[in-house]
Amino acid sequence: MTEIETEPRPAVRLRPNVNAQSFRFGAPWAYADQLVMDRRTRGIPAGAVVELQDAERRPLGAAAFNPDSKIAARMLDRDPAAPIDADWFAARLARALALRETLYDAPFYRLIHAEADGMPGVVIDRFGAAAVIQPNAAWAEARLPALVEAFRAVTGVTTVIKNGSGRARSLEGLTEASEVLSGGVEAPVPVPMNGATYLADLLGGQKTGLFYDQRPNHAFAARLGRGRSVLDVFSHVGGFALAALAGGARGALAVDGSAPALDLATRGAEASGVAHAFETRRGDAFETMAALGEEGRRFGLVVCDPPAFAPSKPALEAGLRAYERVARLGAALVEPGGFLVLCSCSHAADLPRFREASLRGVGRAGRAAQILGVGGAGPDHPAHSHLAESVYLKALFLRLDG
Amino acid sequence: MTEIETEPRPAVRLRPNVNAQSFRFGAPWAYADQLVMDRRTRGIPAGAVVELQDAERRPLGAAAFNPDSKIAARMLDRDPAAPIDADWFAARLARALALRETLYDAPFYRLIHAEADGMPGVVIDRFGAAAVIQPNAAWAEARLPALVEAFRAVTGVTTVIKNGSGRARSLEGLTEASEVLSGGVEAPVPVPMNGATYLADLLGGQKTGLFYDQRPNHAFAARLGRGRSVLDVFSHVGGFALAALAGGARGALAVDGSAPALDLATRGAEASGVAHAFETRRGDAFETMAALGEEGRRFGLVVCDPPAFAPSKPALEAGLRAYERVARLGAALVEPGGFLVLCSCSHAADLPRFREASLRGVGRAGRAAQILGVGGAGPDHPAHSHLAESVYLKALFLRLDG
Repeated sequence: MTEIETEPRPAVRLRPNVNAQSFRFGAPWAYADQLVMDRRTRGIPAGAVVELQDAERRPLGAAAFNPDSKIAARMLDRDPAAPIDADWFAARLARALALRETLYDAPFYRLIHAEADGMPGVVIDRFGAAAVIQPNAAWAEARLPALVEAFRAVTGVTTVIKNGSGRARSLEGLTEASEVLSGGVEAPVPVPMNGATYLADLLGGQKTGLFYDQRPNHAFAARLGRGRSVLDVFSHVGGFALAALAGGARGALAVDGSAPALDLATRGAEASGVAHAFETRRGDAFETMAALGEEGRRFGLVVCDPPAFAPSKPALEAGLRAYERVARLGAALVEPGGFLVLCSCSHAADLPRFREASLRGVGRAGRAAQILGVGGAGPDHPAHSHLAESVYLKALFLRLDG
Repeated sequence: MTEIETEPRPAVRLRPNVNAQSFRFGAPWAYADQLVMDRRTRGIPAGAVVELQDAERRPLGAAAFNPDSKIAARMLDRDPAAPIDADWFAARLARALALRETLYDAPFYRLIHAEADGMPGVVIDRFGAAAVIQPNAAWAEARLPALVEAFRAVTGVTTVIKNGSGRARSLEGLTEASEVLSGGVEAPVPVPMNGATYLADLLGGQKTGLFYDQRPNHAFAARLGRGRSVLDVFSHVGGFALAALAGGARGALAVDGSAPALDLATRGAEASGVAHAFETRRGDAFETMAALGEEGRRFGLVVCDPPAFAPSKPALEAGLRAYERVARLGAALVEPGGFLVLCSCSHAADLPRFREASLRGVGRAGRAAQILGVGGAGPDHPAHSHLAESVYLKALFLRLDG
């Protein structure tokens, strides 16, 4: 199918001290230090499909191999001989599609969430008749034509955009490159969600132009915001603000550092019929929150959904301090009895740490809080059963004292 | 106000090695071994309100005292002189009510969730014009008339039932006693929730007759169950089954060991207009699941919501084995590509342990799973900011292989 597929499929062996049983029970990854990395193995090209074997050369399945990645082998199929071709992609896509069609009435969702949907490293977000594919692993990059062919056949999507940016690709040794693979997009795509209409820029936006993962948290925040004034900090294209306005909030102010994001938010407010109640302020989030405090502005609902402050373990301590600061500045802007929603998409900051930093910040603002709940990513972002601890998104819903 | 209130309010002091600052920042409990327990202190009657002081006799607030409880002092108010009377109860109740009225369109919810709503040990569930109060701490038991007076005034509820059963009371040295405090109930109360109508027996039921905490999990399971057949194991009054039928499930079978619970479930199905699609089977859950497997029955959605198998640390290992067994038996009954929802209300089994036991059980049934998400208790069951780890309810939503 591609120049990197070799016959017969090369074998890659686990070292004798590695528990092979876990792979029979579904473990998705073999690290480089778990494999016999002899000269032959190191010569297998990145992206090749190999037969993963236990130390006694018994097959464990077909795996995607990359000698340049810490995760050297990613399980693709329990059948070591399974052809990884358009039909294989089509079967995985159909299974993923069946779940999303159960969950959602309209075709706007994350369709493929990497390992959990049986496609290691691959992310596909669907926006109606358009989609953005992130083939963030060498095996998928090498098989992109078959993947796109299968995707178009299974979903009927016509416009397919490859988004080749982001940290995951460099870990896989892939270069950054984004392009329209089929069809075309001229304007931001309208995306209906939680009663609002968002505008997603599929070519120029952050990640894939819209964050579907916050959908249930947008919905719950909107319930809290009914009849209240809303402040949406780090708003991007207005995720929380527009959902709250569609749900009956009295008004919303979106704060972001990006003018293009705020422009999309404003156009989304127009498309949602709530432009009269929507305003934006461009600027640094910390400075803007401090300034709003000095202006005496208070809100019934304040949402802070910052970028990952603790993307890695070395960044953890500084990241937790930043989350505490966000919480302190945000809490000071909440009116008595109002709500504060604090989000983190940092893998390295687990829920107990993030919650502790956030509550410390709330306390430093002189406020007391009830915890109403903790939200995670929506169900179109499933977790692999062996990577359950990889849950990254946390939305802490607080009610502050009266 | 009551015979146990003494003047002046007795002082209870923290031992010198105890961090008093944490109480200034909102810590809710002082354990007996954190307090100076001299003869005078031990002589303070259970349920008395005391002035909690740091080791230097500086006041920290008003606390409910109980020399017979491990949690000897529970913070009631930052003001050490605050009178704990009907007005005080009314203020707490009004604040709790404001939250529930934001969250729900109809007056069916947990109104007071103990410490998190500022009333240590007290639980109040509201069922429209009726309510069940659990005054599971000596201070509240002693002030029940003032609490009920305030509750009726704030909410307009006419029928108030005291539920004095359960483990929490014996830890507080309280006797078991349930009674109708005002008004009256003749029949099970209809409770609208998630599009279904449940019947709650406020006098004879488990706990307070209905579990509001599962409301968001009922709702999400109902989304998964649309057009599918549903098995609801440990169904109680049909929590998951009726929500699923109201949401468009093809049919539902409820399994429980209690004939009165199944009778209420059947009457709920009638009240919800879904009796034609609802059946029950009374019996031991494990045996019934095994029997259904042998009969070749398969379901599109299987929900297992057992009682707490690991209510305490000594019961943890046996509890985890029971969760694994539930998962194994449940997974075997899920049709290809169907859903499995596994719940735990065990404090002692935290999410990682419960998830691991559950996934092991699924694996032992020869099935692979995607994790769609983890649900907790609804927002009418808030957590105290210093007791965030006390989150007890976990609902694991899985999709099984095709």
